[in-house]
Amino acid sequence: MDEKETSRLEAFSDGVFAVAITLLVLNIKVPGLDLPPGQWLEEGKLWIAVRDEWPTLVAYIISFLTIGIMWLNHHRLFVHIKRIDTTLLFINLLLLMTIVFIPVPTALLAEYIVLPGQHAAAIIYSGTCLLMACCFNGLWRYASYHHRLLGKNVDAEAVEAISISLGHSFT
Amino acid sequence: MDEKETSRLEAFSDGVFAVAITLLVLNIKVPGLDLPPGQWLEEGKLWIAVRDEWPTLVAYIISFLTIGIMWLNHHRLFVHIKRIDTTLLFINLLLLMTIVFIPVPTALLAEYIVLPGQHAAAIIYSGTCLLMACCFNGLWRYASYHHRLLGKNVDAEAVEAISISLGHSFT
Amino acid sequence: MDEKETSRLEAFSDGVFAVAITLLVLNIKVPGLDLPPGQWLEEGKLWIAVRDEWPTLVAYIISFLTIGIMWLNHHRLFVHIKRIDTTLLFINLLLLMTIVFIPVPTALLAEYIVLPGQHAAAIIYSGTCLLMACCFNGLWRYASYHHRLLGKNVDAEAVEAISISLGHSFT
Amino acid sequence: MDEKETSRLEAFSDGVFAVAITLLVLNIKVPGLDLPPGQWLEEGKLWIAVRDEWPTLVAYIISFLTIGIMWLNHHRLFVHIKRIDTTLLFINLLLLMTIVFIPVPTALLAEYIVLPGQHAAAIIYSGTCLLMACCFNGLWRYASYHHRLLGKNVDAEAVEAISISLGHSFT
Repeated sequence: MDEKETSRLEAFSDGVFAVAITLLVLNIKVPGLDLPPGQWLEEGKLWIAVRDEWPTLVAYIISFLTIGIMWLNHHRLFVHIKRIDTTLLFINLLLLMTIVFIPVPTALLAEYIVLPGQHAAAIIYSGTCLLMACCFNGLWRYASYHHRLLGKNVDAEAVEAISISLGHSFT
Repeated sequence: MDEKETSRLEAFSDGVFAVAITLLVLNIKVPGLDLPPGQWLEEGKLWIAVRDEWPTLVAYIISFLTIGIMWLNHHRLFVHIKRIDTTLLFINLLLLMTIVFIPVPTALLAEYIVLPGQHAAAIIYSGTCLLMACCFNGLWRYASYHHRLLGKNVDAEAVEAISISLGHSFT
Repeated sequence: MDEKETSRLEAFSDGVFAVAITLLVLNIKVPGLDLPPGQWLEEGKLWIAVRDEWPTLVAYIISFLTIGIMWLNHHRLFVHIKRIDTTLLFINLLLLMTIVFIPVPTALLAEYIVLPGQHAAAIIYSGTCLLMACCFNGLWRYASYHHRLLGKNVDAEAVEAISISLGHSFT
Repeated sequence: MDEKETSRLEAFSDGVFAVAITLLVLNIKVPGLDLPPGQWLEEGKLWIAVRDEWPTLVAYIISFLTIGIMWLNHHRLFVHIKRIDTTLLFINLLLLMTIVFIPVPTALLAEYIVLPGQHAAAIIYSGTCLLMACCFNGLWRYASYHHRLLGKNVDAEAVEAISISLGHSFT
């Protein structure tokens, strides 16, 4: 029964991760498509337009890897978490909310990385990452506190390793 | 066989919930990205533009939590519902239609909360929430009527608790 | 093994259905949001703008129900189909391609239903529906021909009923 | 345990494939919808506008089939791959990143196929396909090297057949 509940939570989270990681591509503007009808870029200018898209491409790759790695981490935690309660569902929802939000600061950073507003963009981006790390930590801290929501025959060493890699150690 | 049917319905509904909750991020406009090429915001103005996005951000958070809680409720019902028929599938479709629609009144409310049209926006938002509550009630009322679609060894108290929390009691 | 193959095909199709049905909401423009900054609609005009959105809303509801019913039909077929081969996967891909395409003719029809171009829009919409029906028929005709891909202890009457409801009878 | 890990990876990949294949439809502009309010196309001009959308439609069909076939290939590989490690997850993430990216060069190619910039568009499209093939090859080469991540009672002939069809033979 508990197992089933976890698998549902994972399926929903997987869906959110999958959609969020795919929506990143919508940030990439195809160069030369937003021209008025009857106008287009010549070959040379098209190459230049593509080249000038590099911050968007870098942002796409960074965001994709970020969300992908978050997905890996999320599953690494849920290998051990076997039970759920309302608080865990709520923390998980906050975590997903932060992850779905990632494309916004990334797009901002991609646009302003070469412009004077780069400090503001970098601060907003870092803030989002910090918030995400807090949610991850909170999720694990809550679930692993006195092995609250972990399985019975849980691998204590693996749990400890995750706690340490998240920068905290609870016994 | 029946069990399998329910799991399919849940998987489809989970997918719709996951996509709907992720699409909310598309409502957030990245400030300073819709400027003509060669123009950008200076650092100070960028901060102001970000700050002025607060109604959009609040709308994002509210919608995310709303859809997330709807997902929790949906699953709380389907823990007990074991069989399906065409009517249930149709009511579920109506419910999903309302949930997918939520971002529209939320965006309207976020835009007009500080403007004179706030009454209209609030009425439309409340109407959508009312419609959603009706669908939820109808779904549960239909499924739990004489335990029509519930499992055989269903927990009568839990069913009663859901009925009461939905504001109705059928025996 | 075969069973597993079918379940994968169903999971993928479910995902496509779920995303397609949710993307419909992107066609709904929030009235009064595309105004230049600093302008907005007054309360009376906002109500009129919302009222004038009715063709979009009707299109949303029709498309949602259409794709939802297609999902029901798709699953009704795959209750009986137990095995897959490359041809079936290809026909299924064509079917999904048509279903994902539905929002486009629906948006066209919603826009032009009150305008002189309504005949063209209606023809394109009907053509898409016809194409979808052909794919469904082809899928079932191929799978049920001499019970090619059906299970061994398949319910012959149920198969016959589907064949008849699809407007064809194969023995 | 290992089996479970693979099924999660497959579910996540399936989700990404399903979303990516559905997002293709967003590239199709509905003709006559971006006109200023109060203007519309007459019936004759609407037909012409629809006809002139043919490169977009062809791009939609090609991209849909490309991603669909990639999904088939992905599953053909994961029938044999039973275990995962971090490297495999990373290669899979790169593969998904390339597949999600496909709509961009396709849209570019669809726009410029009849214009002077067609060479540039074709080169970018081919480059993306090449990158995707490399990721696929890398994934299989890594997993099948000395049967690293394959199951124990794996069908050696089937593995060999995949290796050959991918243009490589490892023993």
